[in-house]
Amino acid sequence: MKVTIGQINSIIGDVEGNVKKIKAAISKAISDCSELIIFPELSLLGFPPFDLLKRKNLKKKIEDAISDLINEKYPIGVLIGVPTFNSSVFNSAILIHEGKVIGRQDKFFLGDDPLLQNRYFSCGKPEVITFNGKKLGIVISDDLLEADFDLFSDFFSSVDLIINISSSFYYYGKRAKKIESLKNLAKSYGKKVIYVNQIGGNGELIFDGGSLVFSEGGELIFESKIFEEDIVTLDLDNFFRREASEEDISFIYKGLVLGVRDYFKKSGFKKAFIGLSGGIDSALVACIAKDALSSDNVVGIGMPSIYTAKESIEDAKTLSQNLGIEFRIIPIKDIFYSYLKELNPSKAPIMDLAEENLQSRIRGNLLMFLSNREGGIVLATGNRSEALTGYCTLYGDTAGALEVIGDIYKTMVYDVAKYVNREEEIIPHNILVKVPSAELRPGQKDEDSLPPYGVLDPILNAYVDQNKTFEEIIKMGFDENIVKEVIRKVESNEYKRRQIPPVLRIRSKNPLRERNLPLVHKFI
Amino acid sequence: MKVTIGQINSIIGDVEGNVKKIKAAISKAISDCSELIIFPELSLLGFPPFDLLKRKNLKKKIEDAISDLINEKYPIGVLIGVPTFNSSVFNSAILIHEGKVIGRQDKFFLGDDPLLQNRYFSCGKPEVITFNGKKLGIVISDDLLEADFDLFSDFFSSVDLIINISSSFYYYGKRAKKIESLKNLAKSYGKKVIYVNQIGGNGELIFDGGSLVFSEGGELIFESKIFEEDIVTLDLDNFFRREASEEDISFIYKGLVLGVRDYFKKSGFKKAFIGLSGGIDSALVACIAKDALSSDNVVGIGMPSIYTAKESIEDAKTLSQNLGIEFRIIPIKDIFYSYLKELNPSKAPIMDLAEENLQSRIRGNLLMFLSNREGGIVLATGNRSEALTGYCTLYGDTAGALEVIGDIYKTMVYDVAKYVNREEEIIPHNILVKVPSAELRPGQKDEDSLPPYGVLDPILNAYVDQNKTFEEIIKMGFDENIVKEVIRKVESNEYKRRQIPPVLRIRSKNPLRERNLPLVHKFI
Repeated sequence: MKVTIGQINSIIGDVEGNVKKIKAAISKAISDCSELIIFPELSLLGFPPFDLLKRKNLKKKIEDAISDLINEKYPIGVLIGVPTFNSSVFNSAILIHEGKVIGRQDKFFLGDDPLLQNRYFSCGKPEVITFNGKKLGIVISDDLLEADFDLFSDFFSSVDLIINISSSFYYYGKRAKKIESLKNLAKSYGKKVIYVNQIGGNGELIFDGGSLVFSEGGELIFESKIFEEDIVTLDLDNFFRREASEEDISFIYKGLVLGVRDYFKKSGFKKAFIGLSGGIDSALVACIAKDALSSDNVVGIGMPSIYTAKESIEDAKTLSQNLGIEFRIIPIKDIFYSYLKELNPSKAPIMDLAEENLQSRIRGNLLMFLSNREGGIVLATGNRSEALTGYCTLYGDTAGALEVIGDIYKTMVYDVAKYVNREEEIIPHNILVKVPSAELRPGQKDEDSLPPYGVLDPILNAYVDQNKTFEEIIKMGFDENIVKEVIRKVESNEYKRRQIPPVLRIRSKNPLRERNLPLVHKFI
Repeated sequence: MKVTIGQINSIIGDVEGNVKKIKAAISKAISDCSELIIFPELSLLGFPPFDLLKRKNLKKKIEDAISDLINEKYPIGVLIGVPTFNSSVFNSAILIHEGKVIGRQDKFFLGDDPLLQNRYFSCGKPEVITFNGKKLGIVISDDLLEADFDLFSDFFSSVDLIINISSSFYYYGKRAKKIESLKNLAKSYGKKVIYVNQIGGNGELIFDGGSLVFSEGGELIFESKIFEEDIVTLDLDNFFRREASEEDISFIYKGLVLGVRDYFKKSGFKKAFIGLSGGIDSALVACIAKDALSSDNVVGIGMPSIYTAKESIEDAKTLSQNLGIEFRIIPIKDIFYSYLKELNPSKAPIMDLAEENLQSRIRGNLLMFLSNREGGIVLATGNRSEALTGYCTLYGDTAGALEVIGDIYKTMVYDVAKYVNREEEIIPHNILVKVPSAELRPGQKDEDSLPPYGVLDPILNAYVDQNKTFEEIIKMGFDENIVKEVIRKVESNEYKRRQIPPVLRIRSKNPLRERNLPLVHKFI
């Protein structure tokens, strides 16, 4: 049996555009003599649609698009993820063949979905769909990942082939879990498993594609492109075992590039403005933006203050040259003093926190000004360690439409930067080795306000990602006072996280959207 | 039977503090010779706790607090809302009496809760709890509002008294619905109904209290204070019919005052900084802040630009005098020109959107600076019409920790302002009658960019609050092009709403948290 993986990049809500993409893929499958093409979960509408599912005009749009596909009377099977509407809404797969819908499967695993999509959908029942004499068992979404297959053992036992259509967003470390789970499913029931996943950036979420096929013995026999569209036909009866791509740091980099590229493309923007401080965070964001948008569409802005070291601007300039991007310098000294004239009786700096934040906010203003005037988007450069501890200035370094590396701990920022430099020195060596500093007062270092990142990041990881308690973190060997202070920072900066830009998702647990905390609370 | 309504203002997560409050209320009930005191839903922990329910150290804290209450061996019944922990978590009420827990009821209506609290809780079963010879039927939360009572008709029929403990957040128009629903419950089953609701501001949410008691005939026989704590004992066998307080515009004002007061109190701040433009939005926010925090704790800042009319500053000054608050003037002209020196070749204004936003952001910077230096919180002054259409400057007029009137349409801002002026002219008449303008370029009016608010607000209400389609709104009689443009603005400004400050909730549907849309999408 020849099957085509339709790993497409849908745009949420762009039903007409998605249908075009789907039709093009079907044409390719037909010319490849495929019997069946499989598209991802909700790929006709785009995923995740959230409250678009409540729009009253959605049903007609979707049904019109399905009719359009039916009317093509395709000679091959087209299995596609769509919402279906009866008395309630279902997350479904429909199988179209020769001008008819010959089968439909509603999602029947509804797990504790981090995106809360399950709020919108009713739960279906598994039903075997017969196509060209083969019994297909179709499963929707990656709730399968956490689920107990044996709840549906009759179903899995009775089919010839298991197909999992999914829109599974990427996070670092998910791939191995996913492969393990699908492999087990194939092996336990002795069935081939085809997994087709969405690819593309949709807002904060990055979908990695990387569709998979497993043999009856649980061997991986096919893996499609990762972080790229892929329409590929394979002969299920003629295959060899292969190794899965191993997830390494390059996945994070490629994922972020895709996330930035699709954010711009899907929201209709071209140009990115990035404040380049000479530090590692902004350097990494510039590299990602350049690979996502091309060097012509990235502008780096150096905004030295009276506390900025000369070498910071030199490093930013060298980086820009290495990337081939435009670099402009706008000194903020005179602007800073024009504020102080109104705010300080002496008209000179007194070097308090207010002045530190002011400098950062002047930079935010300048970047927003350029994006307003020239058209484009400001990319914020904060990292996860900063967002969690509130070591950032609201409306200052957090200004921007997207926080590109906001889900990456500072220690991992270095790892990703080293990946960028794997073949040649793109990020100047000096940026990689200098002591982290916000340069908002003379001689300032991040470590004046935070524990060293090598200590901070594991504590944050334990507290936020692993939900460990204060006592458990102490037992891991960290200093009591440091842990107490880190937790205090995390808890007292919820108000900042409510206003930082959307963060490209790289971890399973997002501090803003999945870690849902009261704005004000006293629980420690 | 004498019963005490324990309408308290809990702080989320402050279990120790809440226990103190609970004990004080119990002492009062005992001295009032009450038989039973009733506290709101989850009042031991504070509501809504969101992910605090996932904290591993929560169970012990809660169980210790319960033991503490048990050990007091109170001679009266204490019915209190707490999370309980078995294999899963329940939203429960426990009844403590003479050193024992003599009953427990888990929440058994789990509706489509806008706060998604139901994600955290398992569903219980109704069980009659007998206390002093009376059969109590206890219902938790206001899911009851939308629920079909008859699903539990056996339960309601078999009890002597129905008690509904709730933490029902306020929105304009909810009170009448709530009263109607509880009245029906009492009447349908011929049982007295006691409804005890939380009071207080918790982050964006305002809880109005206003606990209620209905007779067996469905007559209202008691209503406690609204927007205030109230520990009051009543004799259920000795009562008269009374009218419920009618919800009018004063509710919105009082609710916002409570929301601001508790936000400051619960997050440990005293002083509010508000940019006073001479317009109606900032004037109203200043009135609310003054009533919430006292005039000593509110600072109004006038920040005239080259486009600011003289009367704007005069009006802001008069307002400040009327309120007895400090008023400072910081002109932004020189700061504005210091930016233009770096950004415009001519060093003079060219009056584009970038310069408009820049002026707004300079003001945001100044306010943040003052709050950083002097300690306090900036209150943002945007309204709902602006937030929905994106007619605001991110990091400019949206800067602040809380957007006080961000849930109120502009047309309603006038109504609330008139309420403020009901007895004397606090908001200068000129502010009420002037044409709305952002004053960011010469002669600018809001109507240059938006339809008149009298047209805009009903369209927004239809589209966002009532989920009407484009076609349905046209049929209401609005101009097609205007509706199209309004919808376009709403849909394309999701990215702004992701970064505006938390908004005090006054409507049932919050555009940020309940209207959950993809960051980027193409669906219209």
